[in-house]
Amino acid sequence: MSVDAPRSWSLTAIGHVASPVTEQTDSDWGRVTARVVLEPAYRAGLRGLADFSHVIVVTLLHQAAFDPARHLVRRPRGLATMPEVGIFAQRAKDRPNPIGITVVPLLEVTAEGLVVRGLDAIDGTPVLDVKPYYPHYDRAESPRVPEWVNRLMRDYF
Amino acid sequence: MSVDAPRSWSLTAIGHVASPVTEQTDSDWGRVTARVVLEPAYRAGLRGLADFSHVIVVTLLHQAAFDPARHLVRRPRGLATMPEVGIFAQRAKDRPNPIGITVVPLLEVTAEGLVVRGLDAIDGTPVLDVKPYYPHYDRAESPRVPEWVNRLMRDYF
Repeated sequence: MSVDAPRSWSLTAIGHVASPVTEQTDSDWGRVTARVVLEPAYRAGLRGLADFSHVIVVTLLHQAAFDPARHLVRRPRGLATMPEVGIFAQRAKDRPNPIGITVVPLLEVTAEGLVVRGLDAIDGTPVLDVKPYYPHYDRAESPRVPEWVNRLMRDYF
Repeated sequence: MSVDAPRSWSLTAIGHVASPVTEQTDSDWGRVTARVVLEPAYRAGLRGLADFSHVIVVTLLHQAAFDPARHLVRRPRGLATMPEVGIFAQRAKDRPNPIGITVVPLLEVTAEGLVVRGLDAIDGTPVLDVKPYYPHYDRAESPRVPEWVNRLMRDYF
């Protein structure tokens, strides 16, 4: 096979996160109610979304800066209690393409966008996409993770 | 709050999909075994991934072309049996930012990348990211979808 050119693409935000959380944190996101505010040109695209219980919010992690020497392999959050693992085995924000994905309960669809619970993105984070949660695509049955993931995520949501 | 500038970002593929499927289809993806081939510079980032049962493959849907007049609101796959819904209530490829997300069982981690089952991306599709599936982030309990989604997805995987 041949790989199609080009190899780079320009993506533009369709909206942003409006959240009471203004600084990065690693705990208690489950208590946060946030809005996803879409640019006016895209708001018609929300039709029918309220029939879904969950959405996937795709964000651009705009404060990330991937440095291969520091981030390609590292201990999650720099914790000595975590193993050294590759960036593709963790959800850290400093990754080659700083795309964030979180599944959240959809509380409400409004004229300007969405209201969701547990979105782990600070106020002002650019939003690239909103997708309805389809169990067919998104729900793994009996997923297995290494034990350190459960320790890492204990108080995150 | 103020929205951070800039509003656009350039993303570069970290690899590509190698698949026996070379043309877009809407059925039987579940039978497909595909590889995700990473650029050599990123392969060290796979360390530890084999301890996960599932991964999220984030692709750039390079054959998509979003036209607001045609795609902002439409019937999924253009089917008369489907309702007119917004692009954010469906998983169609022609969306403002053509990012694809699929959760797949991880069969093997190899020297060059991954082997996965059920990845709905044709041969040569650029890959933007690989994330480990964390149930904490990715698994919705009792997700609700409208009835048309179950009809649409019946033979997809």
